[in-house]
Amino acid sequence: MDATRTEHDSLGPVQVPVEALWGAQTERARHHFAIGGQAMPLALMYALARVKSAAAQTNAALGRLDPDTAAAIAEVAQEVLDGRHDAQFPLAVWQTGSGTQSHMNMNEVLANRASELLGGERGDARRVHPNDQVNLGQSSNDVFPTAMHVAVAIEVSTALLPAAGTLGAALADKASAFADIVKIGRTHLQDATPLTLGQEFSGYRAQLGLAVGAIEQALEGVFALAIGGTAVGTGLNTVEGFGEAVAARLAETTGQPFVVAPNRFAALAGHEALATLHGALRTLSCALTKIANDLRWLASGPRCGIGELRLPANEPGSSIMPGKVNPTQCEALTMIGARVAGNDVTVGMAAASGNFELNVFKPVIAHAVLESVRLLADGMTSFTRFCVDGVEPDEARIAELLEGSLMLVTALTPRIGYDAAAAIAKRAHADGLTLREAAIRSGEVSEEDYARWVDPAAMLAPSSR
Amino acid sequence: MDATRTEHDSLGPVQVPVEALWGAQTERARHHFAIGGQAMPLALMYALARVKSAAAQTNAALGRLDPDTAAAIAEVAQEVLDGRHDAQFPLAVWQTGSGTQSHMNMNEVLANRASELLGGERGDARRVHPNDQVNLGQSSNDVFPTAMHVAVAIEVSTALLPAAGTLGAALADKASAFADIVKIGRTHLQDATPLTLGQEFSGYRAQLGLAVGAIEQALEGVFALAIGGTAVGTGLNTVEGFGEAVAARLAETTGQPFVVAPNRFAALAGHEALATLHGALRTLSCALTKIANDLRWLASGPRCGIGELRLPANEPGSSIMPGKVNPTQCEALTMIGARVAGNDVTVGMAAASGNFELNVFKPVIAHAVLESVRLLADGMTSFTRFCVDGVEPDEARIAELLEGSLMLVTALTPRIGYDAAAAIAKRAHADGLTLREAAIRSGEVSEEDYARWVDPAAMLAPSSR
Amino acid sequence: MDATRTEHDSLGPVQVPVEALWGAQTERARHHFAIGGQAMPLALMYALARVKSAAAQTNAALGRLDPDTAAAIAEVAQEVLDGRHDAQFPLAVWQTGSGTQSHMNMNEVLANRASELLGGERGDARRVHPNDQVNLGQSSNDVFPTAMHVAVAIEVSTALLPAAGTLGAALADKASAFADIVKIGRTHLQDATPLTLGQEFSGYRAQLGLAVGAIEQALEGVFALAIGGTAVGTGLNTVEGFGEAVAARLAETTGQPFVVAPNRFAALAGHEALATLHGALRTLSCALTKIANDLRWLASGPRCGIGELRLPANEPGSSIMPGKVNPTQCEALTMIGARVAGNDVTVGMAAASGNFELNVFKPVIAHAVLESVRLLADGMTSFTRFCVDGVEPDEARIAELLEGSLMLVTALTPRIGYDAAAAIAKRAHADGLTLREAAIRSGEVSEEDYARWVDPAAMLAPSSR
Amino acid sequence: MDATRTEHDSLGPVQVPVEALWGAQTERARHHFAIGGQAMPLALMYALARVKSAAAQTNAALGRLDPDTAAAIAEVAQEVLDGRHDAQFPLAVWQTGSGTQSHMNMNEVLANRASELLGGERGDARRVHPNDQVNLGQSSNDVFPTAMHVAVAIEVSTALLPAAGTLGAALADKASAFADIVKIGRTHLQDATPLTLGQEFSGYRAQLGLAVGAIEQALEGVFALAIGGTAVGTGLNTVEGFGEAVAARLAETTGQPFVVAPNRFAALAGHEALATLHGALRTLSCALTKIANDLRWLASGPRCGIGELRLPANEPGSSIMPGKVNPTQCEALTMIGARVAGNDVTVGMAAASGNFELNVFKPVIAHAVLESVRLLADGMTSFTRFCVDGVEPDEARIAELLEGSLMLVTALTPRIGYDAAAAIAKRAHADGLTLREAAIRSGEVSEEDYARWVDPAAMLAPSSR
Repeated sequence: MDATRTEHDSLGPVQVPVEALWGAQTERARHHFAIGGQAMPLALMYALARVKSAAAQTNAALGRLDPDTAAAIAEVAQEVLDGRHDAQFPLAVWQTGSGTQSHMNMNEVLANRASELLGGERGDARRVHPNDQVNLGQSSNDVFPTAMHVAVAIEVSTALLPAAGTLGAALADKASAFADIVKIGRTHLQDATPLTLGQEFSGYRAQLGLAVGAIEQALEGVFALAIGGTAVGTGLNTVEGFGEAVAARLAETTGQPFVVAPNRFAALAGHEALATLHGALRTLSCALTKIANDLRWLASGPRCGIGELRLPANEPGSSIMPGKVNPTQCEALTMIGARVAGNDVTVGMAAASGNFELNVFKPVIAHAVLESVRLLADGMTSFTRFCVDGVEPDEARIAELLEGSLMLVTALTPRIGYDAAAAIAKRAHADGLTLREAAIRSGEVSEEDYARWVDPAAMLAPSSR
Repeated sequence: MDATRTEHDSLGPVQVPVEALWGAQTERARHHFAIGGQAMPLALMYALARVKSAAAQTNAALGRLDPDTAAAIAEVAQEVLDGRHDAQFPLAVWQTGSGTQSHMNMNEVLANRASELLGGERGDARRVHPNDQVNLGQSSNDVFPTAMHVAVAIEVSTALLPAAGTLGAALADKASAFADIVKIGRTHLQDATPLTLGQEFSGYRAQLGLAVGAIEQALEGVFALAIGGTAVGTGLNTVEGFGEAVAARLAETTGQPFVVAPNRFAALAGHEALATLHGALRTLSCALTKIANDLRWLASGPRCGIGELRLPANEPGSSIMPGKVNPTQCEALTMIGARVAGNDVTVGMAAASGNFELNVFKPVIAHAVLESVRLLADGMTSFTRFCVDGVEPDEARIAELLEGSLMLVTALTPRIGYDAAAAIAKRAHADGLTLREAAIRSGEVSEEDYARWVDPAAMLAPSSR
Repeated sequence: MDATRTEHDSLGPVQVPVEALWGAQTERARHHFAIGGQAMPLALMYALARVKSAAAQTNAALGRLDPDTAAAIAEVAQEVLDGRHDAQFPLAVWQTGSGTQSHMNMNEVLANRASELLGGERGDARRVHPNDQVNLGQSSNDVFPTAMHVAVAIEVSTALLPAAGTLGAALADKASAFADIVKIGRTHLQDATPLTLGQEFSGYRAQLGLAVGAIEQALEGVFALAIGGTAVGTGLNTVEGFGEAVAARLAETTGQPFVVAPNRFAALAGHEALATLHGALRTLSCALTKIANDLRWLASGPRCGIGELRLPANEPGSSIMPGKVNPTQCEALTMIGARVAGNDVTVGMAAASGNFELNVFKPVIAHAVLESVRLLADGMTSFTRFCVDGVEPDEARIAELLEGSLMLVTALTPRIGYDAAAAIAKRAHADGLTLREAAIRSGEVSEEDYARWVDPAAMLAPSSR
Repeated sequence: MDATRTEHDSLGPVQVPVEALWGAQTERARHHFAIGGQAMPLALMYALARVKSAAAQTNAALGRLDPDTAAAIAEVAQEVLDGRHDAQFPLAVWQTGSGTQSHMNMNEVLANRASELLGGERGDARRVHPNDQVNLGQSSNDVFPTAMHVAVAIEVSTALLPAAGTLGAALADKASAFADIVKIGRTHLQDATPLTLGQEFSGYRAQLGLAVGAIEQALEGVFALAIGGTAVGTGLNTVEGFGEAVAARLAETTGQPFVVAPNRFAALAGHEALATLHGALRTLSCALTKIANDLRWLASGPRCGIGELRLPANEPGSSIMPGKVNPTQCEALTMIGARVAGNDVTVGMAAASGNFELNVFKPVIAHAVLESVRLLADGMTSFTRFCVDGVEPDEARIAELLEGSLMLVTALTPRIGYDAAAAIAKRAHADGLTLREAAIRSGEVSEEDYARWVDPAAMLAPSSR
C-alpha cells in the first residue's frame, strides 16, 4: 500500500499520499468524482497558477500578505507553468460546478510546495495556509472564472489565431497562384457560370476571415475578468483595487489586455462572454467545414469524380483497395466541425443554467471551449501543412470540364433574352450537343456572335459600363 | 373550379389562378413544395421588394432599364411594403435552397403588377419581363442573401435592439429602486454572503448588456451585402458599380449602413455573418433564461419557496388549483430560450453545408434567424411589460431570510481564520443555533466583536484599504 | 370598436369579443402573450378536444356529470374536429409552460358553445362551467401532456409512417429496377470497388427502415398517457379508474393503443417519451439527409459532375442561368434535416428542464415535435413524388465511369497481394493508363488472368466458398 | 535520437521507433494527425482486437488462413485485451473518417507481434502481413463500424445499464422509505397540492426507467454488425458466411447477441443505429438532469431555501465561505447532461454526413458515443453512492411547509366550486391568513367541513368511486 500522511480540512482528517503536493480537499474530490477520463485541462490549471501568483503578489503589495510567502507562492506558480507539477492536478472535469475542487487543488499544491520552499513541510503543519494565505481575498467564484478567461484568451491568441493566420496565408497564396485558371462554377452541385480557381480560393480566404473577425470581436469580452468579486460579486473580504491590480499583473505577464469586468455579479453568475466566443468558434467550424468539403469534392475521383484538384497523398487510403488515396485531412477537419458544433450546444446549455449569484457549470464550459480552441488550432495547422499547401490543380481536367459545360449560355442572356437562351441550353442537353452547336442551330446566334459573346475569360467580372 | 390563365416559363405552360399576380414558376413551386405550414417570412419578402426596387432604380440610373419600367417596379415594391400584396407570396420555406422560387415569386408579382401599372396586362403578354427586366443584372444567388441580410438587419435594429433597450432600462430601474435592500446571496442554490437586491438586478442588466454588445458587433457583418455577385460571385451580366449603387440605395432608404461584401464569392457560398449573429442571439437567450429563472425562483412559493419577490398576477394559474398564480412570463421566455438554442443548431448546420459557389440552405437560415429575432424581441417586450415592470420585493421575507442565514460567517474569516469560522457555522447548522449564538459559544468571538464584524450592510463591497 | 361582452374569471372581469367562443382567461392570454407568429398547433388543439370529449363522457358514465351536459361537450368537441372552430384558438405557443392557457381556451370554447347547444347563452351566464364541468376531475397538468401524446401519436401514425412507407416502397422499386446496373462505388468520395445501382438503393431503403423502426419503438412510450394524474400526479379530485377509462375511450375513437402511464408523477414532470421519439425523428432526418445528398451528388452536372442519375426537372433552376435544373427536392429535404436537428436540441433542453411535479416547457415541446413530424411527413411525400419516383439512371455515363476506374484493382489483391496490386493502381494513375494496361505492363498479370479476375459483375458479392 | 527501423507501405519507406509494435502506416498517421488530446478510445481499440481475432479464427476455420498464424493473431489480440499493449495505440480520434489509420494500427501491431510469437521479427521481414493476413477478407469499412458497435454494446451492457440499475434501486429504496412522508407538491415552482416524498421519488425512478427502456430498445440495432461487407458493402474479397461466422464468434466471446446487419450497404454508409442509441442516451441525460436538479433544489438552503432534503456533505463547499456544503454530485451530473446534449448534436451531424458507400465521420461518432456512455455510467455510480444513498428528509421542515401552504384549497373545489375556492385562497394570501382561517371566514365552509374535507393525507390519490 502507498504511504500516506494525514491532512485535515473542515470536515475532518483525510489520508493523502505522501508524495502528493495536494491536500485533504483534493484527496476527497479524487474519491468522490471518479468520473470519466477527462482531467481538468492543464491550460486551465496553468491559468489558475497565473491568477494565484498575481493575487499573492498583489496582496503583498497591498501589505496584506507577507512578502516572503507571496514570493514563495509565485515561485511555485512558475514551477507549475514550467510543467514541473503536471501530475499534481489529477481531478476530473466532472466535479463541483464552481470548479472549487480544482481551485483548492491548486491552493493546496501552492501551499504545500511554498511551505517547503520556505523551509517548512507539506501537510497540516505547513507554513502556508491554502485558504487564509494562498486564497486571501479570493473565492473560487471569482478566481475560477478569471482563470477560465485567462486560459481561453491565451489559447485563442497564441494558438488559434496564429493557426488561422497561417491557413489564411496559404489560401491567399493559392488564390494568387490560381488567378488565371478559368474553371466552371457550380451552384446546387450543378454546372454554373465560370470563375477562376483563384477566385474560388479567395472566397475560402474570405470565409475564414469573417470567422476570424468574429473571434477577435468576441475576445474583447473574454479579456474582462471576474477577479475581485469574491464569493457573490460584492468583493467581500478583499480590498478596493485588488481585482484591478490582479488584472493589471495578468495583463503584464501575459501580454493580453486583461481588465476587471465592469459588473462582477454578471461575471460570476453568467458566461455570456464565453458563450459568444464559442459561437464565433462555431462560425469558424462552419467555414472550415465548407472549405474542407470543397477541397475533397474538387479532388474527388481520381477518375469517377470531379478531379479538378489533386491533394497530397499522405498515406495509403485503404486497407483493402490498393492505391487508394483519400482526403484524410479534410475528413479530420470536418469531424472537428461536428465536435465543435456539439461543444457549442454544451456551452450554450451550460451558460444558460446559472442561478442567482453563480453559474455552476463552469468546468464543463472551460473544458468544451478549450477543447474546441485546441481542435480548431491543431486541425487548421494540420490541414494547412498536409493539405492546402500541397493542393495542385489538374489544369487539363479543369479545361475539359469548362469546355463541355452548357452554362456559358448565361452570357447569351443579355443578347437574346432568358427564354431563347434557355431553349438553346435545353436542346444542347437533350441532344448531347455542345453549347456552340446548339446555339448556332437555334438560328438565334451566328458563329461570329457566339465566338465574341461566349468567352469564359470575359465572364469573370461585371462588364465595365 | 377556379378560373386560370396560362403562363409559360422555360419548361412550358402552367395554369395560374387569374387573380394571382404570381406567374408560372411560383405556380409550379406551389405544386411541388406543399411542405409544412411555414410560409417564407414576410420580413424576407419585404426585404426582397426593397432589393428589387433599388436594383430597378439603379439599372435605370445606369441607363440599362427604361425609366418608366423602373418606376413601375419601384411603385409595386412600395405596394408590397405597404402590405397590399401579402397574399401573393404563398410559397413555403421548404423549397429550393437558393430561395430562387420565392425570388421568382417576387419577380413575377413585380412584373405582372408593374405591367398593369403601365397599362398592360398580367401574364405572358405583360409589358415587364420578370427575368430580363425585373431581374436585370441580378441572380437569386446574390439577391436572396442580400435580402436575408437586409431583413435581418432591419428586424434586429428596429425590433430586437429596442426591445432589449426597454428591458435593460427596466432592469436598471429596479436595480436603482432596490439599491438599499440587503438580502442573502445564493451560490450552488445554497445560502452565501449577502448583497443588495439592487446589485442582483444590476447583474441581470449587465448580462443583458453583454449579449446586446455581442449582437451589435455581429451586426457589422450583416450590413455587408452579396449584391453584385450575380450567379457565382463574379458579377457576370451586371456592370461595375451596380452592387455598390444598390447597397447605397438600400442604406439610404432603410437607414442601415449597408455596403457590398468585400468578397462576394464568400457572400454567396457561406453564411458566416448570419451564423455569428445567431450565435450572439443564442447568447442573449442564455442571459434571458438566467434572468427569467432567477425571477421565478425568487418568487417561488408563495409559502413554500423562496418568496423574496412578487411577480404580477396576470392570469389565473391553474385549471384545478384555485388561486394559484404562476410565473408565466418567465416560462414563455425560457421556452423561447429553448427554441433559440435549437434554431442556433439549425443555422450552424445549414451554414456549414455550402458547396462550391453557393450555400443552398438559405431559406432555412433566413427562417430560423428571423424567427429567433422575432421571438426574442416579442418575448422581451412581453417580459418587461408584464413581469419586470411589476416586480416587487417582499422586504419582510427578505429580512427574515437574511437574519436566519449562516453564511454571514464569512465576515469572520479575516478575523479568526477559515477553519475556526467553519467550525462555528457547522455548529450553528447542526444545533439549530443562530450564527451569533454559535459564534459566541465558540469562545472565538465576543458579543461586541460579533456586532462589529458581522454587519450585512458592511458585506456589500470590498473594504477600503 | 368591436362589440364585447364581459366575462369573469378568478382575477375579475374581462372584455371578450362578442363573436368569440372563448372566455376571460383566453382573452387575458391574448393580451399577455403577443409573442411570435406561431399559434398552438391545431393538431394539438384537436387532440385536446378529443381528450375533453372522452373525459366528459367518462364522467357521465361514472355518474359525475349530467349526461346532457356531457353530450353537449362531446358534440362541440366533434365540431372542433370537423374544423368548424379553428379561429377560436388564437393563442400563441409562447405562453404558460403547462399549456394551461390553451387548455382553458378549449375549456371555455367547449363551455360556451355547449351552453348554446343546451339552449343557454355564452359568457358568464352559460349553463356549462369551463372548470367545474368541462374540466371535472382534470387538470392542465395531466390533460395537456395527454393531448400532446395523443396529437403526436396520431400524426406519426397517420401521416409520418405512411409517408415513410411510400418512400420506402419507391426506393425498393428502384432497387429492384436497377438491380443489374453495375457502377463504380465511392468511399471517401474516391473511386472504390463496384456495386449495382440497385444495391445502392437497397442501402437507402435499409437506412430509412432503421429510422422507421426506431420511430415505431419510440411510439410505444407515446401511447402512455398522463390522464388521471390531475394536478401533481396523485389524481386528487378525480376518481379511481377515470384515467384508464379516458384512455380506453381515446384508444377506441382513434384506433391508437392508448393506455395510462404506469407512473403519472413521471408523466407530468418529465418528457422522456417525446424526447426519445424526437431522437428517433432525428435519426430519420439523418437517413433522409444522406439519401437526398447522394441523389443530388449522383445527379450532379449535367456535364461537369458525376451525372450517373437524372432527377426530374420540376422547375426552371435559375433566374439568371437559362436551362439550369436543380435538385430542389433534395434541397428542401436537407433543409428539413437541419430544422429537425435544431428541433431536437429544443426538445432535449425542454425535456431536461422540469422541476418537481411538473415540466413547464410543454408547449415548446409539442410545437417542435409536431413541426418535425409534419415537415418529415410532407418532405418525404414531396421527395418521393417529385424526385425518387422519377429518378433515372444514365446508363452510358455509369458504364463509362466504371470502365475508367482503377479500383477494380482490388480484385487482384487475393491473387497477387496488396502491395503488388497497389503498385499497379499507382502506375495507372500516374501514367494515365487503364487498369488493364498497367496490370499487364507490370508483369504480374497476364491478359487472360486479367480478363478472368477483373470482372466487375463478379465483384458484387462475396465469393462462394 | 530514438532508434528506428525502416518499414515500408505502398507509399514508401518510413522510420518507425524500434520499440514500437506499430508499423509504417501508424507512423505516418502520428505525423500527419497531431491534433488535439484525445486518443482513439481504448474501448474501441479493444473491440477492434476482438473483431480481428474473430476474423482470424474464422478465416482459419474456412481454410483461408494458416491455423498457426490465426492462433498467433488471436493470442496477440488477447494480450491487447489484457491491457499489455495500450501504449501501442497512439493515434488521435482526428484522423481518416473511416478509422482506417487506427484499424491499420491494430493490423500492424497484430502482425508484428504475431510474427514475434511465431519466431519471426517485427518490421518488413515479419512473418504475418498486416493486410494480406490480419486483414484477410476485411476492410476498414466493415471492420471499423463493427468494432464501434461491439465497443458500444459492451460498454452499455456492462457499465451503463448496471449503473442505471443501481441508481434505480436506490431511488426505489427511497421511494419506499419515504412512502409516508406527506409534503407539499410544487408546479411552476409554486405551491401545489400535496403528495408523498415517496411518490416524488417513484417519479424519479419512473423517469429513469423510461430512459433505460429507450436505451435497451436502441441497443437492438447496435447488435447488428457491418462485418462481411468489406469495402463497399458487397463483400468483395471475402467468402459467403464469413460475416455471419465472425458475428457468431463475437457473440460467443462477449455474451452479447451480435448478428450481421441485414443490409451491409446501410451499415457502412449510415449510422442510424448509433444515432438512435445516442438519442436514447440524451433522454437519459434529460431524466438525470431533472432528478439532480430536484434534489439540489429540495436541499437548497440550509436556511434560505426549500430545505426539505439533506444531501451528504462530502467535501467543504467553499474556499471563502466556511461551513458551506454544496450539492456537488448534482452539479457533476447536470454538467454531464450538458455534455451529453452536445455529444448528441455531434453524433447527429456526423451520422447525417455520409456519402455514397461510406460515412466518413466514424471516429468522431465512436468517440462521442463512448464518452457519453462512460460519463453517464460513472456519473450515475457516483451520484448514487455519494448522493442518493445518503439523502435524508428533514421531516420537521416538510411538515412546516405543508401546513403553511394554501394549495390544499384544491380539495374544496369539488365541494364549493372552483370560483369560491379561488376566492378563499386569494384572501388567505393577501391577508396572511392560514387557509383554514380564510376558509371559515368566507362563510362557505364550516370548521367541521374544513377538518373533514381538507386532509392532506386524503389528497394523495383519486377518491374511490
